[in-house]
Amino acid sequence: MGHGAPRSPLAPAAFPDLPAIAGLTLGVAEAGTRYRGRLDAMLAVLPEGSAVAGVLTRSATASADVLGCREVLARGGTGRAAIVVTAGNANAFTGRAGDASVAAIRAGVAAAAGVDEGRVLTCATGVIGEPLPHDRVLAVLDALAAGGASWAQAADAIRTTDTFPKGAGARVGDAAIAGIAKGSGMIAPDMATMLAYVFTDAAIPPDRLQAMLSRQADLTFNRITVDSDTSTSDTLLLAATGAAGPVDEAAFEAALHGVLLDLAHQVVRDGEGASKFVTVRVTGAQTGADAERVARAIADSPLVKTAVAGEDPNWGRVVMAVGKSGAKADRDRLSIRFGDVLVAAEGWVHPDYREADAAAHMKGPEVTIHADLGLGAGEATVWTCDLTHGYIDINADYRS
Amino acid sequence: MGHGAPRSPLAPAAFPDLPAIAGLTLGVAEAGTRYRGRLDAMLAVLPEGSAVAGVLTRSATASADVLGCREVLARGGTGRAAIVVTAGNANAFTGRAGDASVAAIRAGVAAAAGVDEGRVLTCATGVIGEPLPHDRVLAVLDALAAGGASWAQAADAIRTTDTFPKGAGARVGDAAIAGIAKGSGMIAPDMATMLAYVFTDAAIPPDRLQAMLSRQADLTFNRITVDSDTSTSDTLLLAATGAAGPVDEAAFEAALHGVLLDLAHQVVRDGEGASKFVTVRVTGAQTGADAERVARAIADSPLVKTAVAGEDPNWGRVVMAVGKSGAKADRDRLSIRFGDVLVAAEGWVHPDYREADAAAHMKGPEVTIHADLGLGAGEATVWTCDLTHGYIDINADYRS
Repeated sequence: MGHGAPRSPLAPAAFPDLPAIAGLTLGVAEAGTRYRGRLDAMLAVLPEGSAVAGVLTRSATASADVLGCREVLARGGTGRAAIVVTAGNANAFTGRAGDASVAAIRAGVAAAAGVDEGRVLTCATGVIGEPLPHDRVLAVLDALAAGGASWAQAADAIRTTDTFPKGAGARVGDAAIAGIAKGSGMIAPDMATMLAYVFTDAAIPPDRLQAMLSRQADLTFNRITVDSDTSTSDTLLLAATGAAGPVDEAAFEAALHGVLLDLAHQVVRDGEGASKFVTVRVTGAQTGADAERVARAIADSPLVKTAVAGEDPNWGRVVMAVGKSGAKADRDRLSIRFGDVLVAAEGWVHPDYREADAAAHMKGPEVTIHADLGLGAGEATVWTCDLTHGYIDINADYRS
Repeated sequence: MGHGAPRSPLAPAAFPDLPAIAGLTLGVAEAGTRYRGRLDAMLAVLPEGSAVAGVLTRSATASADVLGCREVLARGGTGRAAIVVTAGNANAFTGRAGDASVAAIRAGVAAAAGVDEGRVLTCATGVIGEPLPHDRVLAVLDALAAGGASWAQAADAIRTTDTFPKGAGARVGDAAIAGIAKGSGMIAPDMATMLAYVFTDAAIPPDRLQAMLSRQADLTFNRITVDSDTSTSDTLLLAATGAAGPVDEAAFEAALHGVLLDLAHQVVRDGEGASKFVTVRVTGAQTGADAERVARAIADSPLVKTAVAGEDPNWGRVVMAVGKSGAKADRDRLSIRFGDVLVAAEGWVHPDYREADAAAHMKGPEVTIHADLGLGAGEATVWTCDLTHGYIDINADYRS
């Protein structure tokens, strides 16, 4: 299922076996908006009574599709609905022509799938600044509406530069959750951006569905970073058909958390050029917000990320990142661990620290950096990957 | 004068001819705190009546030396003063031992140079987390206090991973300004960090000297970025001996601006792995603060920086950076230029745009990216360099 680039060394062994979602129809097709000879379009049709929640990019230069999704989500309510995704062209920064493409695809999907136009969510990912040849999407709408696609096909159809398809699922009582995502590099607005679609047959009213999704997105997709860049197209949608009836919502939210976290981690594992999966854990901050600020400063630091690539337990760069974060910190209370190895404590390298121990941890594919600020109970975890020559290769030479 | 690494391709042709500063004594020596067989310590002794102003890192994990400088500067006033700089060990995150090293060097310099202990500013740059062998500095204090060093020697003595020594000067009426700096990578707290020392013989009272320095640092050193990381040691000091008498302070501040900007640009030109000097100009923002926010978002974006390295006029990544900055922006008013080439206007690629024109601009060593937001009169300029394989080489393999 590869599209050229070798599979990430951090990829899971295989695409998971995902549960069916009662009431949901999935279709895939080859629209050829940019790619040839591969699946590049996906349609999900949701039955009567379905609710849809979403979390969209905060970018001020959001794509036409994101603006369209925002409108549909604001309308709320339940009913038949459709989500259509095309890969290859992001329809971003395409001016009024971009809005026209969204309108055309929306009208076509509404007719082909028997869905109200105001409940069609369109998503596009790929190159930006080029008009989307939406006629090619309209030409395959009947094929898309015919359904019959597997989860693996749906996950494959939404990929751009991803080196593996991403999926995760769970069961909650009689209901199921299944999700797919794409993303490689937190975002590279040319061709990669983060899109994720999660479906359930649990019956959950729209407002509570949105509240759960917003809370859990903050703890999962909003806690990953590859290169600190933010897409014009990032979109996470959660649709509930209701066909399996009501569930214990606390149990559902816990399962949803697991599915979102799994998908978010898979995006990091497919980070451009990634050779290490890095968990940055911060404890002992004065507040949770401070902990998150420090964790992001460490995870986004090019110096920390290149040190991880070099398998160098360079704790000095972690000290630097803590210092620059803007959070309250005290040199003489700070302690730092790589994996289980206590490197520094109370403002200085720990007397028992042997660099060989930390270096051994850095050689594995999974690296944990833990900073305790010693000030309070605030904690946060952020996930990232290392910064390698592969990232430069992909992004400096991309369009040439 | 190289210390191993090849001179940056963006380096100026030669070290400039800098004016003498009346009343100032400069000394250099080989202390050997880390390096062998090269100058690595510098002492500047300022005469009676001297004022010293400073701008220090905002890092919450600032080095012992920065904390010491903060104390001295807070005391203010005029009188004899000394600035001592050692290269090779940053004396950062060295706990109470770091404070003891500062105290020892301060006492030694006070005795050797006949300066009040409370007016000795110490600075250290190099590896962090290792105790500073300050006895080696104390052993060369007499050599340092003997003076007689040239500007080129002083600039050379404060270098760590810099590939060329950095200096800039100006004349204002009867007075002169001369400055030296080090820095390569906005900061790499192992071995590189930004230090700059500017001297004048103009007579300017301490409060006004500090106000000028703070204003001009914001427009120069605070407008450069190599990798968005912030040092535990960044220090900029401006000392005025007063020996040349009063000057037109507006003319002085303009000249000071030029000297600081020249030094700041030299730091960018020595950015780790840099192959292009990049000017990011933002106009038409709703406020100056918004313009600065957008300029920084573009200049710090790994995707923009790798595109510059690849000589790719990838305006989509500029759109992305504008969108993620948090500043107010409107897709349909945004225009983007690479050099003089109008790439995009009113939310889409300009009809006359030919990629070959922008690509030609990207091939030169100096690249200008100009984004106009079309919303107001706010503007700002930030300078950076590209992100290359060289940066990864230097930082991933640094300590190995």
